Amino acid sequence: MKIVITGGGGFLGQMLARVLIARGGLATEPGAKTSLSELVLLDQAFPANRVEDRLIKYASGDIGDAALLTRAFAPATNAVFHLAAVVSAGAEADFDLGYRVNLDGARLTLEACRRQPVPPRLVFTSSVAAFGGALPAVVDDTTAATPQSSYGTQKAIGELLVADYSRKGYLDGRTVRLPTIVVRPGKPNRAASGFMSGILREPLNGEPALCLVAPDARMWILSPERAVDTLIRAIELPAEAWGWNRTLNAPGITVSVAEALAALATLAGGEVAARVRFERDAAIENIVLSWPARFATERANRLGFRGDAGIEEIICAHMRASGR
Amino acid sequence: MKIVITGGGGFLGQMLARVLIARGGLATEPGAKTSLSELVLLDQAFPANRVEDRLIKYASGDIGDAALLTRAFAPATNAVFHLAAVVSAGAEADFDLGYRVNLDGARLTLEACRRQPVPPRLVFTSSVAAFGGALPAVVDDTTAATPQSSYGTQKAIGELLVADYSRKGYLDGRTVRLPTIVVRPGKPNRAASGFMSGILREPLNGEPALCLVAPDARMWILSPERAVDTLIRAIELPAEAWGWNRTLNAPGITVSVAEALAALATLAGGEVAARVRFERDAAIENIVLSWPARFATERANRLGFRGDAGIEEIICAHMRASGR
Repeated sequence: MKIVITGGGGFLGQMLARVLIARGGLATEPGAKTSLSELVLLDQAFPANRVEDRLIKYASGDIGDAALLTRAFAPATNAVFHLAAVVSAGAEADFDLGYRVNLDGARLTLEACRRQPVPPRLVFTSSVAAFGGALPAVVDDTTAATPQSSYGTQKAIGELLVADYSRKGYLDGRTVRLPTIVVRPGKPNRAASGFMSGILREPLNGEPALCLVAPDARMWILSPERAVDTLIRAIELPAEAWGWNRTLNAPGITVSVAEALAALATLAGGEVAARVRFERDAAIENIVLSWPARFATERANRLGFRGDAGIEEIICAHMRASGR
Repeated sequence: MKIVITGGGGFLGQMLARVLIARGGLATEPGAKTSLSELVLLDQAFPANRVEDRLIKYASGDIGDAALLTRAFAPATNAVFHLAAVVSAGAEADFDLGYRVNLDGARLTLEACRRQPVPPRLVFTSSVAAFGGALPAVVDDTTAATPQSSYGTQKAIGELLVADYSRKGYLDGRTVRLPTIVVRPGKPNRAASGFMSGILREPLNGEPALCLVAPDARMWILSPERAVDTLIRAIELPAEAWGWNRTLNAPGITVSVAEALAALATLAGGEVAARVRFERDAAIENIVLSWPARFATERANRLGFRGDAGIEEIICAHMRASGR
């Protein structure tokens, strides 16, 4: 089987590629694994230490380039992970860029799927940013998507498109609304929630970090490892398991900034946690605090999706992954 | 004030134009009416008996033509009713046309608003088709939009775009999800729900009519007169009344096909109602029966929106309007 990952140069795309290579394929048919024959990673840029394998091909360019997508998908793509996106603060700062990449790019990706000889499976990563405004105390599987950022709007639109293309049989799509991913490896990006990784990652590297929200701010989070598990489970589940509803709130855990820093102090020492300074940023708070922090993910639990056990486990996994 | 109606050649656009001319303006400022200076009706085609007035200008062309929109909006538009759409069965039959008109056309209209010197007010007509799938018995203001048709998907996407453009201050948008409009005047169109008007309108004209669903099928309906009231109320309400949530389920009434025909028999005679023949159409049922028929419109009621008193009143109003 041929798999394409858009946004394959990002940290999640790279981690997913590593796992797909290690697994050697996907169990998309009941009781059998279909072997990976080619893995195309499509992105504008790739990290210097990008994952390499004889099955991996890198395709460099813009998600808005339909011809690039056609080439990347040829001759026949069986599964697609559509991860490419301008992140939250980026889409809020540049309205037109956000719509071009997050909306038009998603449409072009779905159209590329539609042109395949056999409708491919597709996993689209949406986000807690699809929610906002006056929300119930606990968001559940029936809560309406009322985003309060352009990024969240574009993700909610992508969900609708994936559902409609699936209903028409042009592809077999599955959207997972991912929690904020913590601890993101590497350098900070323009994700409004990036500080939540920064306040754990930077102090562990011996560096100072800024927390842009108050200590009692709570977030709905998921480790990178569990996020990759979520994507793979989403694509491997049979179409019947998804049914008419192709959008799912993925499990996560609710963690406040104060709880995360207390766990960091316990695991790495108080002097490490003390490297975090608080400096509230109204623009970031406007985005991040509009996202819900508490979910009941009954449907996802029933479908076998799993979040992390706790913030300590997440920090330990990050420390192991970064060689500590 | 200059007002633009996209889809101004449709029956609702024409009715709205008549009412706006009769009112002479809109009460968009508290306690005062702003006089109408120009009313542009934009559409691909117009009826032979189109409404004429010295304030009305007709602009003929495609909603996908950005230059046409720029000309129609010049030099400065204060209020927009974005009604232009490929209707439900049409969008289901021609996937690409539906997206081009209902999604790309909406985006171009919003972009034309964004280019105005002062952000205009805009009313967008969404639909009960934004709902579908496994729904609660009564749809309320918190029910998630999970459309099960391309038309509903495109409307739900339009809602999200109107909300995001409003949040960014590019326009002051308001979306009303209209019930199925009954009795639509004129000839049948490709609206999947069109039969519900046909089974009342055609028999009153002495003609036979086909009902494409079973007698116990229920629909959420609104008369054309009340639909125009809804659009005007939507644009006249101050921005504060809308707040962060720019999408509203408009009031209607729940009526079954059997109830509608019984009312027709009472008002016009059993021989008139007997002109309706039942011939179920699976494609139409797939679309129409995915729409909810029962709503609790608490927020709309609070904001002063009103539905009809009953199906008898709706049929009487239609009989009066068509000179009976």
